[in-house]
Amino acid sequence: MQMIIAVDAMGGDYGPDVTVPATIQIIEKNPDLQIILVGDQEILQKKIAGYFAQNRLKNSEEIKSKITIHHASEKVEMDESPTKVLRNKKDSSMRVAINLVKNGTANACVSAGNTGALMATAHFVLKTIPGVDRSAIESTFPTINPQKHVRMLDLGANVDSTANHLYQFAIMGSLVASNLDNIAHPKIGLLNVGEEEIKGNEQVKQTAVLLSQNKKINYIGYVEGDDIFKGDVDVVVCDGFIGNVALKTIEGLAKLIVTSLKRNFSRNIFTKLSALIAMPVLKKLSKEFDPGRYNGASFLGLQGIVIKSHGGANIPAFANAIKEATLQVKNNVPQKIRDEVSKMLQEPIAQ
Amino acid sequence: MQMIIAVDAMGGDYGPDVTVPATIQIIEKNPDLQIILVGDQEILQKKIAGYFAQNRLKNSEEIKSKITIHHASEKVEMDESPTKVLRNKKDSSMRVAINLVKNGTANACVSAGNTGALMATAHFVLKTIPGVDRSAIESTFPTINPQKHVRMLDLGANVDSTANHLYQFAIMGSLVASNLDNIAHPKIGLLNVGEEEIKGNEQVKQTAVLLSQNKKINYIGYVEGDDIFKGDVDVVVCDGFIGNVALKTIEGLAKLIVTSLKRNFSRNIFTKLSALIAMPVLKKLSKEFDPGRYNGASFLGLQGIVIKSHGGANIPAFANAIKEATLQVKNNVPQKIRDEVSKMLQEPIAQ
Repeated sequence: MQMIIAVDAMGGDYGPDVTVPATIQIIEKNPDLQIILVGDQEILQKKIAGYFAQNRLKNSEEIKSKITIHHASEKVEMDESPTKVLRNKKDSSMRVAINLVKNGTANACVSAGNTGALMATAHFVLKTIPGVDRSAIESTFPTINPQKHVRMLDLGANVDSTANHLYQFAIMGSLVASNLDNIAHPKIGLLNVGEEEIKGNEQVKQTAVLLSQNKKINYIGYVEGDDIFKGDVDVVVCDGFIGNVALKTIEGLAKLIVTSLKRNFSRNIFTKLSALIAMPVLKKLSKEFDPGRYNGASFLGLQGIVIKSHGGANIPAFANAIKEATLQVKNNVPQKIRDEVSKMLQEPIAQ
Repeated sequence: MQMIIAVDAMGGDYGPDVTVPATIQIIEKNPDLQIILVGDQEILQKKIAGYFAQNRLKNSEEIKSKITIHHASEKVEMDESPTKVLRNKKDSSMRVAINLVKNGTANACVSAGNTGALMATAHFVLKTIPGVDRSAIESTFPTINPQKHVRMLDLGANVDSTANHLYQFAIMGSLVASNLDNIAHPKIGLLNVGEEEIKGNEQVKQTAVLLSQNKKINYIGYVEGDDIFKGDVDVVVCDGFIGNVALKTIEGLAKLIVTSLKRNFSRNIFTKLSALIAMPVLKKLSKEFDPGRYNGASFLGLQGIVIKSHGGANIPAFANAIKEATLQVKNNVPQKIRDEVSKMLQEPIAQ
């Protein structure tokens, strides 16, 4: 299946240094893919030429033919306020990439830029699918079962979600898991706290009622923070405030453990030697937990596919985010959400 | 300083198998400490006798003289509903241990039992300090700086906390950090999400205003999930729903990483050999992250000291929870909270 992905080539901590090589490498592996690099034409041309000069590829001409540059004169900074970006940066590489999705030139777009600005712009340009009140950020995490990952949403698009919002997130998450992970009846869990007395806040309790009433959703009940990684649940649903705290906590703890590993293995000559010997295992382990493997969060619920890469993503990680975009295109995710939501809207939903 | 700690000897996943050895071992190291073991007299007597028969200690008579058994005929199960426990189990080892704090027989109590039941019972028996609306669960976590831990609250006592509740948690957390960690002006951070557009929900925004107005609190602003482990903040304040999700997520991820380490190191004879060689480093690492080192969460804001141990705590971990109780007694934490809160109440607090 032929497809075209628009890449915000200037976004992220490394901009074209990452987006250009990732683009070339993923096209090399996926002959059906065409990529529009959006950004400063001169910089991008140089970067592409530089890559091909340094890496002699057999089919470089074929690859080049699948890359288009779409000039955009501005760039969104990582710390810019979304409101200001929306108002003032109408020719930013980010905005133009999203425009290309809106006008049908591209099937999806990928950006490693400022999350808040990307979210605000994507919302403003693409709008949510009719019947979806709010879009949600969804991404995958590893589990204790190496063959299985878990999807979680919302990771930070919304705070103070109502029960109905959470209910819609569950529907969208279920659709994504069944389509992208080929799970017939994805197990949906609602993130909650464990103590009996204080079991959940009002939103969560009401959401549980809505989910139990929907026979199409395989709702398995409440899950707790530690259940995310157990491999027993396919989709974890929560409010964006909680999801974002969980996401950042996971990132922080992973960094803490890696730092401690390094410190302990570099303590003296003996520990350095043992690190050398343990290296193959440690490498395998770090590959298993490589956040790049899981890079590429989607903004579900919009009328178009927008994939957010981690700002600090390296080349393979950014390529993974592009791959995530291709999967959503192949599976026509927004259309499926639209169909399902419009069916649901014909049935009564408690508010 | 002489002190008496009441231990719920029947609580937790292992009951007296853990609580009795932990009691003996911590008394051995702390000659000023006396412990009242609350629970089934016959079982506890046997367990104590068994320990001394198996472990020949020089000063066994002296240690024995510092242990009292206080009989309680009932035991709270780990999955019992707090409401039922409160109503029906008035002679449980948990309730009796808390009663001993209430009537002044003990300076503090420690339990590894059912968190919900412990919280409900402690609240019912001890009540909150006048001026404190809600108590909060507080505990410590490791940071990237091996010399520094971070305190976090609330870890699950409350959901739907108001700004005023969060403000009180910050005051209590600050007092604990300055007293127990000897930090003159503990840095207080408010847990929030990072995206500019959606910066926080209403409670968090209002709490930030309250904290900025209080000159006694060294409020450093918003922190995100990954900041917990950076060592730049002394106390992280959040709602109990969010804190509990973060806590459980940390536990789950730690378990996932340990499982993967084991799996990867036991893959074949070479990886097993490399595990042997890397063992000293891995052991040091696992010691650094040993949840037992951080075992012992406190219910801050009650008129008495109650320390919650992890249900699955082993002997050294449970001993750590007892040690946490002794620290709070030594530093007279509830009285300091009472003083500070009563001073605050004389100043106007925005609602």
